[in-house]
Amino acid sequence: MPENKRHSKTSASDRKEEVDHLLHGMGKDVYDTLDNGVFPELALRSRSVRNIVYSEEVKQYVLGSSLVHRSSGNVKHIRPFAQLMWLGLFSKLLINQGKTSTLRDVYYSSQAYDIDFTDQSESDEIITDLEVVLSKSREDFNIYPEERSAIFGDVTIEYTVKGYEGKTLNLASHPDGYLIGPSLSTSEFVDTSAEMIIAVEKGGLFTRFVEEKVHEKYHALIIDTAGQPPRSTRYMLKRLSDELNLPLNIFTDGDVYGEHIAMVIIAGSANAAHLRDLAVPRGKWLGVWGSDITKYKLPSDPLSDIDIKRVHELKRDPRYTGGIWQRELDVFLKLKRKSELEAFSKYGLTAVTDKYLPEKLEMAKSL
Amino acid sequence: MPENKRHSKTSASDRKEEVDHLLHGMGKDVYDTLDNGVFPELALRSRSVRNIVYSEEVKQYVLGSSLVHRSSGNVKHIRPFAQLMWLGLFSKLLINQGKTSTLRDVYYSSQAYDIDFTDQSESDEIITDLEVVLSKSREDFNIYPEERSAIFGDVTIEYTVKGYEGKTLNLASHPDGYLIGPSLSTSEFVDTSAEMIIAVEKGGLFTRFVEEKVHEKYHALIIDTAGQPPRSTRYMLKRLSDELNLPLNIFTDGDVYGEHIAMVIIAGSANAAHLRDLAVPRGKWLGVWGSDITKYKLPSDPLSDIDIKRVHELKRDPRYTGGIWQRELDVFLKLKRKSELEAFSKYGLTAVTDKYLPEKLEMAKSL
Repeated sequence: MPENKRHSKTSASDRKEEVDHLLHGMGKDVYDTLDNGVFPELALRSRSVRNIVYSEEVKQYVLGSSLVHRSSGNVKHIRPFAQLMWLGLFSKLLINQGKTSTLRDVYYSSQAYDIDFTDQSESDEIITDLEVVLSKSREDFNIYPEERSAIFGDVTIEYTVKGYEGKTLNLASHPDGYLIGPSLSTSEFVDTSAEMIIAVEKGGLFTRFVEEKVHEKYHALIIDTAGQPPRSTRYMLKRLSDELNLPLNIFTDGDVYGEHIAMVIIAGSANAAHLRDLAVPRGKWLGVWGSDITKYKLPSDPLSDIDIKRVHELKRDPRYTGGIWQRELDVFLKLKRKSELEAFSKYGLTAVTDKYLPEKLEMAKSL
Repeated sequence: MPENKRHSKTSASDRKEEVDHLLHGMGKDVYDTLDNGVFPELALRSRSVRNIVYSEEVKQYVLGSSLVHRSSGNVKHIRPFAQLMWLGLFSKLLINQGKTSTLRDVYYSSQAYDIDFTDQSESDEIITDLEVVLSKSREDFNIYPEERSAIFGDVTIEYTVKGYEGKTLNLASHPDGYLIGPSLSTSEFVDTSAEMIIAVEKGGLFTRFVEEKVHEKYHALIIDTAGQPPRSTRYMLKRLSDELNLPLNIFTDGDVYGEHIAMVIIAGSANAAHLRDLAVPRGKWLGVWGSDITKYKLPSDPLSDIDIKRVHELKRDPRYTGGIWQRELDVFLKLKRKSELEAFSKYGLTAVTDKYLPEKLEMAKSL
């Protein structure tokens, strides 16, 4: 084992216990209140647009101090109150039985308990309510997205899921990559020789990076975000970066959507303003910048009206104040062009890994 | 190792050699013709709509006998002729260097050779031309899709890709599943205890099947097609079914799109009428059928106008003649309802694996 291997005893199973404990506590509070002859109620931070504010301190959107009250003594509140209680029960069962679910599955499962949701958007809302109440994300309740990203590189994980407890796997053994699903998300990171994480937004580039041995040359873990990464992947990026103390470098297409993929990984989203565990503030967006289109004489396409509208929207977004963020939005506007990671193939298939990547990684040191 | 393990020495590397040989032959023909002072030309089957015909014999769409001629002596043909020759060269380099590419990457790579394509759709067309000329699919030229499906189950593979030659991997070791990319697609299947393949169209169900140990209970390889599977996944399904001699059972949502996912896996598509290696005629669509919506009293949604239009389109499609195909289209029309695999969660999270799956597998014996 190389000397630079690092160990990390992480909190995956502690975290599970904590959530189980929180759910138990929520139920116990309700019973205790009932035993005292009082109608139980809950207070949760409002998720209305007016209560989503940008925090300069944590460089993220957070919820303000407005509260929403749900009282079982108020006939208008009984429905969402009961739905939330059921979801707490259902989540606890999932965790205790070691099973996972999806947003869709939760909606249908409610019918097994004669809990009425008009449609899936109503059950999705209640799931977010539970996130707000417990300050935990739905993956902590074993509710996972359908979409999965992938990972490849030298990190040895140890599973905590039922039937695989204690088994280990090195994520450099299958060069097409490992799906980031429930098992990987809840595993402990045992060992790694990696010195950085490289996230790319496309499967084709992910394969190119593996083929060109970027993982060996730069001691990197490579993540395919598959476009805007699902929350479970952002959580994985955060865990890898925090627990293994690795810098995160992000490569996207050279357009406003690519820039925003990097931004959401680094600074979180307004939709998840109630969660603190999804952003990786130390992450760096290394390209493709608008200025790279000129610098590397990349093939490019004109911005559409929709692209331009989106640039103007983001220019007003508080996350985009200053630094490369605002600068590169201005470059896109000035050039009125966009480009893609694959555009480097103009200089040969491996130009992106042989020339662009090392130049950008060198530059990252002074970012 | 259990007695029922089966071995298969497959043709992955033979196939690679064959394609390399075909590409070499194509180039050599051109040179030989030039040496004889003649303008080289190619004849390829036309892919015009009029030349795509349904073959009762192979139960697939095939190309008819109309030919398109491309002569380097005709000024109108020089451009596609030269583009095709370049693609042949580029594909041969990919194969010989053990690198892969994507449709998008091929488009940009052409610029490294000063080959002019107006846009990607023009280079995509030429890639299909090369498929027609050689009767091989683009994955055989190392051109892979961005989208990837996943597999899980007891099959040991042996890699043939550069850097991994001879290494083996058992696909039951990572319960989130393995991406079906270039490395898996070109691997040899060494060993399996599986007795069937089960394909499901959704990641959530894939995870449910793994969690409920469907792979152990039914000795199954489980494939997540992630919606309509990319061609490389259909090719993988065919290889697994043919080389390991395994039946293929397909589960989709209970709607016209789900039925068509199963149909394309089993009988191929009109778009790929020039290819023979993508269909799995022995495959069976086991559900969710329209008639299951009634039988299992599943939660369901009304068909939209677009759904109904699509049912009528498929009712006229020759692949849908007779059997369950036409019958279930009629059921959808009659009920005017559709349902989803997750709808079984109405009876508990594991009803789909504990009750529906075994009933359908039993029924499959008489299909």
